[in-house]
Amino acid sequence: MHIRLINPNTTASMTALMHEAAVRLAAPGTTLSASQPDAGPVSIESHFDEAVSAVGVADEVLKGEHEGGIDAYVVACFGDPGLLAARELTRAPVIGIAEAAFHLATLVSTRFSVVTTLGRTGIIAEHLLEQYGFHHHCRRVRAAEIPVLDLESSPDAAYQRIIDECARARDEDGIGAIVLGCGGMAGLQRQISQEVGLPVIEGVSAALKLAESLVALGIPTSKHGDLDFPRPKPFTGKFEGYSQLALGASAKR
Amino acid sequence: MHIRLINPNTTASMTALMHEAAVRLAAPGTTLSASQPDAGPVSIESHFDEAVSAVGVADEVLKGEHEGGIDAYVVACFGDPGLLAARELTRAPVIGIAEAAFHLATLVSTRFSVVTTLGRTGIIAEHLLEQYGFHHHCRRVRAAEIPVLDLESSPDAAYQRIIDECARARDEDGIGAIVLGCGGMAGLQRQISQEVGLPVIEGVSAALKLAESLVALGIPTSKHGDLDFPRPKPFTGKFEGYSQLALGASAKR
Amino acid sequence: MHIRLINPNTTASMTALMHEAAVRLAAPGTTLSASQPDAGPVSIESHFDEAVSAVGVADEVLKGEHEGGIDAYVVACFGDPGLLAARELTRAPVIGIAEAAFHLATLVSTRFSVVTTLGRTGIIAEHLLEQYGFHHHCRRVRAAEIPVLDLESSPDAAYQRIIDECARARDEDGIGAIVLGCGGMAGLQRQISQEVGLPVIEGVSAALKLAESLVALGIPTSKHGDLDFPRPKPFTGKFEGYSQLALGASAKR
Amino acid sequence: MHIRLINPNTTASMTALMHEAAVRLAAPGTTLSASQPDAGPVSIESHFDEAVSAVGVADEVLKGEHEGGIDAYVVACFGDPGLLAARELTRAPVIGIAEAAFHLATLVSTRFSVVTTLGRTGIIAEHLLEQYGFHHHCRRVRAAEIPVLDLESSPDAAYQRIIDECARARDEDGIGAIVLGCGGMAGLQRQISQEVGLPVIEGVSAALKLAESLVALGIPTSKHGDLDFPRPKPFTGKFEGYSQLALGASAKR
Amino acid sequence: MHIRLINPNTTASMTALMHEAAVRLAAPGTTLSASQPDAGPVSIESHFDEAVSAVGVADEVLKGEHEGGIDAYVVACFGDPGLLAARELTRAPVIGIAEAAFHLATLVSTRFSVVTTLGRTGIIAEHLLEQYGFHHHCRRVRAAEIPVLDLESSPDAAYQRIIDECARARDEDGIGAIVLGCGGMAGLQRQISQEVGLPVIEGVSAALKLAESLVALGIPTSKHGDLDFPRPKPFTGKFEGYSQLALGASAKR
Amino acid sequence: MHIRLINPNTTASMTALMHEAAVRLAAPGTTLSASQPDAGPVSIESHFDEAVSAVGVADEVLKGEHEGGIDAYVVACFGDPGLLAARELTRAPVIGIAEAAFHLATLVSTRFSVVTTLGRTGIIAEHLLEQYGFHHHCRRVRAAEIPVLDLESSPDAAYQRIIDECARARDEDGIGAIVLGCGGMAGLQRQISQEVGLPVIEGVSAALKLAESLVALGIPTSKHGDLDFPRPKPFTGKFEGYSQLALGASAKR
Repeated sequence: MHIRLINPNTTASMTALMHEAAVRLAAPGTTLSASQPDAGPVSIESHFDEAVSAVGVADEVLKGEHEGGIDAYVVACFGDPGLLAARELTRAPVIGIAEAAFHLATLVSTRFSVVTTLGRTGIIAEHLLEQYGFHHHCRRVRAAEIPVLDLESSPDAAYQRIIDECARARDEDGIGAIVLGCGGMAGLQRQISQEVGLPVIEGVSAALKLAESLVALGIPTSKHGDLDFPRPKPFTGKFEGYSQLALGASAKR
Repeated sequence: MHIRLINPNTTASMTALMHEAAVRLAAPGTTLSASQPDAGPVSIESHFDEAVSAVGVADEVLKGEHEGGIDAYVVACFGDPGLLAARELTRAPVIGIAEAAFHLATLVSTRFSVVTTLGRTGIIAEHLLEQYGFHHHCRRVRAAEIPVLDLESSPDAAYQRIIDECARARDEDGIGAIVLGCGGMAGLQRQISQEVGLPVIEGVSAALKLAESLVALGIPTSKHGDLDFPRPKPFTGKFEGYSQLALGASAKR
Repeated sequence: MHIRLINPNTTASMTALMHEAAVRLAAPGTTLSASQPDAGPVSIESHFDEAVSAVGVADEVLKGEHEGGIDAYVVACFGDPGLLAARELTRAPVIGIAEAAFHLATLVSTRFSVVTTLGRTGIIAEHLLEQYGFHHHCRRVRAAEIPVLDLESSPDAAYQRIIDECARARDEDGIGAIVLGCGGMAGLQRQISQEVGLPVIEGVSAALKLAESLVALGIPTSKHGDLDFPRPKPFTGKFEGYSQLALGASAKR
Repeated sequence: MHIRLINPNTTASMTALMHEAAVRLAAPGTTLSASQPDAGPVSIESHFDEAVSAVGVADEVLKGEHEGGIDAYVVACFGDPGLLAARELTRAPVIGIAEAAFHLATLVSTRFSVVTTLGRTGIIAEHLLEQYGFHHHCRRVRAAEIPVLDLESSPDAAYQRIIDECARARDEDGIGAIVLGCGGMAGLQRQISQEVGLPVIEGVSAALKLAESLVALGIPTSKHGDLDFPRPKPFTGKFEGYSQLALGASAKR
Repeated sequence: MHIRLINPNTTASMTALMHEAAVRLAAPGTTLSASQPDAGPVSIESHFDEAVSAVGVADEVLKGEHEGGIDAYVVACFGDPGLLAARELTRAPVIGIAEAAFHLATLVSTRFSVVTTLGRTGIIAEHLLEQYGFHHHCRRVRAAEIPVLDLESSPDAAYQRIIDECARARDEDGIGAIVLGCGGMAGLQRQISQEVGLPVIEGVSAALKLAESLVALGIPTSKHGDLDFPRPKPFTGKFEGYSQLALGASAKR
Repeated sequence: MHIRLINPNTTASMTALMHEAAVRLAAPGTTLSASQPDAGPVSIESHFDEAVSAVGVADEVLKGEHEGGIDAYVVACFGDPGLLAARELTRAPVIGIAEAAFHLATLVSTRFSVVTTLGRTGIIAEHLLEQYGFHHHCRRVRAAEIPVLDLESSPDAAYQRIIDECARARDEDGIGAIVLGCGGMAGLQRQISQEVGLPVIEGVSAALKLAESLVALGIPTSKHGDLDFPRPKPFTGKFEGYSQLALGASAKR
């Protein structure tokens, strides 16, 4: 089984960090490769960053489909950028890390809180909670107020702020679990869980497992209805490469 | 990894059927055992059947905890009977097949329909959809109008009615996937999917995979807040055996 | 008119307390009897306690139906355990005290808060509020953090904590009424109302009145659809007594 | 106990019809008087009719308060016109017949449909269902397409259309109970219930019982917060009579 | 284009204030006239005040229709009293200031708070947010706790309390914009916006622009379905003037 | 006042069509310019097309900001692609045509239906209705099943299918108004409205008017919180041009 982890931002070191964290948790038979777009923002901290990165995600899925042999994709940014678009481009399951973390959190608790990086991106999590239906299950979206790349550049300070915010969530929110709201927090869940004494769900690992699950069950992304391959058509300019995509034909699943 | 499949009804042949279907999909390292309560209804087709079976589910979890070495439980009836109660009794994840199927269905489609056995149990699925937050994702809960045990006694006739109802769901509901709404349909998903041309999600296999996922990630059922072990206390009469349960103490996870 | 008050826990003194409180409020023509299950927990403070007590509630309804002449049932635990199951077993109305209190609270206020015993059972009230549709009407579910049986063993201390929490609800929540979230608080509503200056709704009395109302109007529990009598079927083990229940036949309403 | 039935329209014969139907169901100790506004529409079949009738309802409550000795009010039009305004004018409970019918319907069924008079007023029922929180419990709002006053002038034809629509609701909607959506249908519920074989809830009788319930329990309309007596102030023109209302002072409850 | 601003209360000085504020913002081709009912409360601070003022609003629309040549109406009280009734009486668009402010606020922010006058009327804004669908977009309904007419009599003190509450909303609520919750605040939005540094939306001006928009687009109030002209019928007493309204016939749009 | 109409697809003839239709409805003082991205799909009929077009929308806003003097933007595709991203890039209001049409439809009717082009894009409208809060106001999303560009290439056949679907909506849905669900239907609303006899709301014209409204009122897009200018940061590859965007500095509003 080959799963492709797509980091929607273009920071290769973050791709490596997430890949490394995920590899440790992959099933024995799972090959986990990782990539990031050639083009896009170095981190995703706004609606605009997210919109641009959605194209990068689609690019990486198209590359993967061209390459062949990829059984599922993980979109490793907590805003789940371009998720439905990516699903249209392949029969392989495509899992976002925000949805994955929300799903698993509801399986081990009745209420959870999200601890994310910047307050301004909290709205993205709120919108996803509403769209996915988990609005009532989440008590609060909290921010540790650290820029995404500080997770790499100042890991200790960033880690302490996350721990502090998780402790506040535990003490004030009436919750049973915490969702880490950034792909850059991959690998931290066990340690945080031990420190704060609650189950802590991190999205990259959660999505990896959901991807493995769907592949093992042979459940593909639906091609009946709105997730069917896009109608081939001309694209112009820097997106000309998408013209006359013939995805259904080449797919052999 | 040892996962215990609990059939909430007392029909051992249905336990065997579900176990057999699930074993084929278990991960290489997974040991899958199965049990059903000593006491309870032979099938679950009403709120009353479900309430009684919830105690059977709790019994089976307690047996499992006494036995030791069980890493996760699957509750294999589409009403998810006794799910929150079961979660209180163990640190191991406990997954219901209805919730599992709903979760996975949202990952491969934007809208799905449920095809269950009897119309009168449709309300149970509707209530779960509302409680879990998947209400907007489900277009319609449909019934093939077959009693649960007919899935064993008249498999061909039952199968045909399910196929017919799935085809109607595909043609009329504007959906991308179908959820099979009964544990007794375990093992049928691939064949139905081929016949109707849509992803078909079946709960026993879905729950198995979510259970494997949580165990692999080391995410336990929360013991912070309302899913903590029940306060030990006296029980009377036929439930006297639950008195002074000391679950937290004996648990070593 | 004969109404049977079912205390879902097995503490006879609490049954007596609730019965005594309710009798004082029963209509002139109402006979109010009370019972508790032979088997079950002495108090209900967890999802597990609640699941076990649901069977006790069903047992008591079956006893009542065998006995005959009972016009309605009240299920006197704030989690409304086994409510839909109980409704299937009889044509008589069956009223839960949580739902009853919520219904009446919306008739005299636009927003209310709930004051219950333990924080960990608050989630049960939240789930019921969502299921019944009163989610927007309730500002907050509060807990006085007193174990249920302390209401009997340390009534003065318990009472003071309830009063304090009700006063906080009045001062902080922007509400017009308070719902008492435990059957063990039966009889306290008038005194609390006088102390805090708000309408206070208590569930046992509320359910008694709703039961009397439905009986007086001749409105039975629906037997069309999902609340119809359960299909008779075999049960095994300690639940064998439920086998081949022939409720529809024996009922003469 | 003195309950005042307020018919929000000005057709005295409909007041009499509803009064007569309700008196037969009143508790032994209940005195039931009835009135209708001096001013307003002869029937209520639009948002405009309803807005005007809300003032009539307030007038009748003020008359009742001036008169004294009235323990509760029933507002007997299915749009519950002026309900919150009426509640501000008195400590006595004020119950609308739509809310009352919805509340009781949820106690004996999991899903119900409404059968009302004119299609154009269906939206009023829909808005109330959303506001009260019963939106998910109602499958469908149906109209027999009969003008309100035809219930009096052509009772047989009207009755047949109602029966036909109720039968369609039973056969097509997957429901357990029917709510009659017009005060003019008071008295018909038992006969319709027998003909269609479902519990049928009618609002005037339902509201009577809820009013009796609240009075028996001593639960007043909240005067804490937004349902407190209106701040006295000048009114002008034909509403000058409302100037400097001093309701709190004169009330002695 | 002729737009009529209807102040639902009877305080002519407040009509003048709102008219003056709106005129400054009217489009070049817009004639803006203003009126208030002959009868009703001098300010609207309760459900009762609102119910009475709804009739005044209808009266003013009827006057306008009799007069002729009016292209749209604005109902200038933040509870949008009588809005649906008014829409039935005319083909001209009728816009409430609360709905208008909510609509525009969602166009420039993802979350907003409301700052209104009295805490007791907050519930009216909450109900409207739920009815209109903006419930999730509003973080909080806040009150500066100033009686409506103090906006005129003590403008400086009132203004300072509004500013203070807006600043608290900005600092505590996680919002992007503020909605002013009272018609009496017309004209203050620019100054408040400058002081607190957020977009501030005021309803009178917002409604004026929405009214101009609909007229410019030639979009009338629907006369298909529930907003059609009311069925002509007798009215009695002080409302006799509404008898046999023949609105559809006289309208020539 | 200068408003820029952005056609998110790259078909210049459709830009011209929408521009021409909108110009006829622009206010006297409004200059309306139009553009489409240099790069992207020729029509938008899938989640993928939409994701790509979101970048095109952002590009056009950035061009507009560079150009200067643009007071508001209209995003003229019914999926409102890139709306929140676009809002971050400017202080000018940015209005989507779907949201605009929904907003105006609720002002003239209590329930509406949407008639769009292809069934597969219906889900996009459904998601927007849920996100914006208009879910309960819309009865049904209907598709005439015509590819977007057929609106240009086969206008007569396309028009007839739209009319037919609108007539079905009017007759079957219980609505008061129809929303046209595609920018390519710009200019058709009056004619369709006359043929089907209902108010018909078209998004391009609706958004134009909302844009004019916000500009006239001086209400900018919020720069407090999540719609603030994106944090400047490096972008790579074909998106390198977005690096170190310094939007806040250059803006002079």
